[in-house]
Amino acid sequence: MNQGFSFTLHATDGAARRGEIFTPRGTIRTPAFMPVGTAATVKAMFVKDVRAAGADIVLGNVYHLMLRPGAERVARLGGLHRFMNWPYPILTDSGGFQVMSLAKLRKLDESGVTFQSHIDGSRHHLSPERSMEIQHLLGSDIQMQFDECVRLPCSDAEAERAMRLSLRWAERSRKAFREEAGRAVFGIVQGGACKPLRIESAKALAEMDFHGLAVGGLAVGEPQEVMLDMLETTLPHLPVEKPRYLMGVGTPDDIIQAVARGVDMFDCVMPTRAGRHGLAYTRFGKVNLRNSRHAEDMRPLDPESTCPATRDYSRAYLHHLVKAGEILGMMLLTQANVAYYQDLMAGLRTAISEGRLNDFIAETREGWTRGEGMNSTLG
Amino acid sequence: MNQGFSFTLHATDGAARRGEIFTPRGTIRTPAFMPVGTAATVKAMFVKDVRAAGADIVLGNVYHLMLRPGAERVARLGGLHRFMNWPYPILTDSGGFQVMSLAKLRKLDESGVTFQSHIDGSRHHLSPERSMEIQHLLGSDIQMQFDECVRLPCSDAEAERAMRLSLRWAERSRKAFREEAGRAVFGIVQGGACKPLRIESAKALAEMDFHGLAVGGLAVGEPQEVMLDMLETTLPHLPVEKPRYLMGVGTPDDIIQAVARGVDMFDCVMPTRAGRHGLAYTRFGKVNLRNSRHAEDMRPLDPESTCPATRDYSRAYLHHLVKAGEILGMMLLTQANVAYYQDLMAGLRTAISEGRLNDFIAETREGWTRGEGMNSTLG
Repeated sequence: MNQGFSFTLHATDGAARRGEIFTPRGTIRTPAFMPVGTAATVKAMFVKDVRAAGADIVLGNVYHLMLRPGAERVARLGGLHRFMNWPYPILTDSGGFQVMSLAKLRKLDESGVTFQSHIDGSRHHLSPERSMEIQHLLGSDIQMQFDECVRLPCSDAEAERAMRLSLRWAERSRKAFREEAGRAVFGIVQGGACKPLRIESAKALAEMDFHGLAVGGLAVGEPQEVMLDMLETTLPHLPVEKPRYLMGVGTPDDIIQAVARGVDMFDCVMPTRAGRHGLAYTRFGKVNLRNSRHAEDMRPLDPESTCPATRDYSRAYLHHLVKAGEILGMMLLTQANVAYYQDLMAGLRTAISEGRLNDFIAETREGWTRGEGMNSTLG
Repeated sequence: MNQGFSFTLHATDGAARRGEIFTPRGTIRTPAFMPVGTAATVKAMFVKDVRAAGADIVLGNVYHLMLRPGAERVARLGGLHRFMNWPYPILTDSGGFQVMSLAKLRKLDESGVTFQSHIDGSRHHLSPERSMEIQHLLGSDIQMQFDECVRLPCSDAEAERAMRLSLRWAERSRKAFREEAGRAVFGIVQGGACKPLRIESAKALAEMDFHGLAVGGLAVGEPQEVMLDMLETTLPHLPVEKPRYLMGVGTPDDIIQAVARGVDMFDCVMPTRAGRHGLAYTRFGKVNLRNSRHAEDMRPLDPESTCPATRDYSRAYLHHLVKAGEILGMMLLTQANVAYYQDLMAGLRTAISEGRLNDFIAETREGWTRGEGMNSTLG
C-alpha cells in the first residue's frame, strides 16, 4: 500500500460499510459524498461553507482545469488546494468522461483522445500518461485512472471494447502515477450493463495495485434497477480492504441504495446544479421553490437543520429569490443541498455503526413522502 | 422630531460631519454608505456578510419590491427586515427614480406616475400617497418622499418644472407618512444643475417637518465638478441638525469629496455591480480582474484587509473565476467591494473625529495611484 494513505473499516451492517480514509490532508469519513468543484469552485458556494456543511473531500475535474486555468499554471500557483483555499483532500477525475460529454471533434484511439476545447476550440490530447501528469500537477490526493465511459444503453460489443481499452489504460495509468506519500490512484470498473464484462473488469482491476476502486459507467442513462444490479454483480469481486467509489451518483435514494450494497464514496453535481435551478433536497423530499405555493410560506425548508440556508430563510423568501433570478437564491439553495447530502451521509454512517441501517433507510424514505407541503415539526 | 429617531453630531472637520443616527433597529454611524439591496437582497451576498463588512443600514427599492414580491405580500410576511433576515435599519427609496429608468410606457401627471412593469407588462400607479403606503408596508425605517428626478443635462425650465412638482409631492408625501416611533421620512432637494433652483428647493424643504434631507438628481450624467458645485450650493441651506443624504453616489472619490462638503449618507450600486463584473475597489485603486496580468499573481487584493474575500484569495484565483464566469467570482468581488466601501467610511469617520480629514483624503488618494500592479506591503 501507500505510506500516508490508508483505509480502515470500522463497522459493517449487511453489505454496508462504515470506515475512514486517512490522508495527510485529512480524514475522509465513509460513506462519503464529495461535492463537485468543477473549475476549482463548488459552484455558488464559499469553500468554508462546503467544509461547514460537513464535506471531508471535494472533487475537481481534469477536463475543466486543464483547459482553464491549465494544469501547469495551477502547479505554478502552488497546486489546486492552495488555489481554491481548500486544504483538505481532493479527488480528481481523469478527464475522460467529460471529454466525451463536453468537448468537440473528439477522436479516440489506443493512445488516448484528441479533442477541441468547448471554450475556445483549441486542440488538446489526453492519454493515461497525460491525465496522470495533470492530476499530479494539480496536487490531487486521490487520482483516477484514465478510462473510456460509454453511455447506456449500448451494445455489449461496444461495452466490451471500451472495457478492454479501459483495462489497458488502467495499466498505463497505474504505471504513470507518481508515487508520493499520501497520494492514491483508483482504478475504474467498466463493462456497461453486461454482468460478465463487469465481473471481468472488476477481477482484472482487483489484481492491479490500485489504492481504491471505482465503478464507472453507471448513472449514464439506465434505470436505477440496472445500476443496482450492476453494483450487486460488481462489488463482490472488489477487494474488501479498499475503498469503493461509485462515480457520478446520484439522487439521495441512489446513494442510500448503493451504500446498502457496500459503496463507500460518491460524487454528483445534483445538489449543486439543483440548487442553481430552484430545487431543494430536504428531509421532506424535493422542494421546487419556483412553485407559487411557496409564495407566502413563512416556514424554512427545515427548522431542525444546522445549515443557515435551510433553517433561517422562509420558503417565501427563497421562492422570491428564485423567481427574481437572484444569485442569493442559488447561493442559499446550493448551500442547503450540499448540507442535506452531507447530513444524509452522516446519518448513514451513524446508522451503520449502530447496526440500524434498514431502520434509518425506512425512516428517511418515510420523511421524503411527507412532501413539499408537509412538515411534522410545524404541522 | 420623532420619538425613537434622532441624529447627533459628534464632531466636525471643516464642513465634514461625524455623527450617529439612532433608530430602534440600530445606530447608523455617519458618514454612512448604504449597500443597495434592490429586490430584498444585496446581490450575490449573504446578508450576514453585509453586516460583517460594517454596514449599519441597507437600501431597498420600492419599484422592484412593489412589482415582486409586492408590498402587501411583504407586509403579510412580517415586513422587509424579517423577509430578508436583516434586523437592522433599512432605508427605502420612493420608487420614482426607477420608474423613470426601468419601467415602460410611463405617463406622469400631477397625481403621480402610471407605468408598465418591466417584468410582466402589468400596469401600476405610483403617487406620493401610494409610495408612502408601500414604504410603510415594507416596514422601512427611513422613508423617502416621492419625487421626480430629471437626467442631466436638461434645460432649466425642465429642471424647474420637476423641482416644483417634487416640492408639491414633498408636501403630499410628508402628509401621507404614517407617524410611528422610530420611523423617519426624508425630503429630496431637486433643481438639476441650476443653482437658484437648488437653493429654492433646499429652503422650501428645510421649512417642512422632515427628519432628514436628501440631495437627489445628481450623479445622473453630469461631471463630478457639477455635482460638487451643486452640493456646495445646496448644503448650506439645509438644517445643520438633520442628516443629509446624497442619493445614488458614487465612486470612492465622489464619496470622499461629498463627505468633505458635509454629506452624511450615501447609497450606490457601484460596489455590488462592479463586483459582478470583475472589478474590485481596493486601497490601491480599481483592479480589473478580467485582465490577464493577474493570471499568475498570487497576491491577494489587499493582505491587510479584514475581509476574507480581499485577504484570503489570490488575484490569480479571482481572475480565473471571473474568466470562467463562476458565481463565486461575483460573490467574492461583491464582498470585497462592499467591505472596501465600509472600510473607507470607517476611515473617513475616524479622520473627522481626529480632525485630520485632509490628511486622510491625501493618503487615500495616494494609495489609489499605486495602481493594480503596485502594493507597498508585498513590494
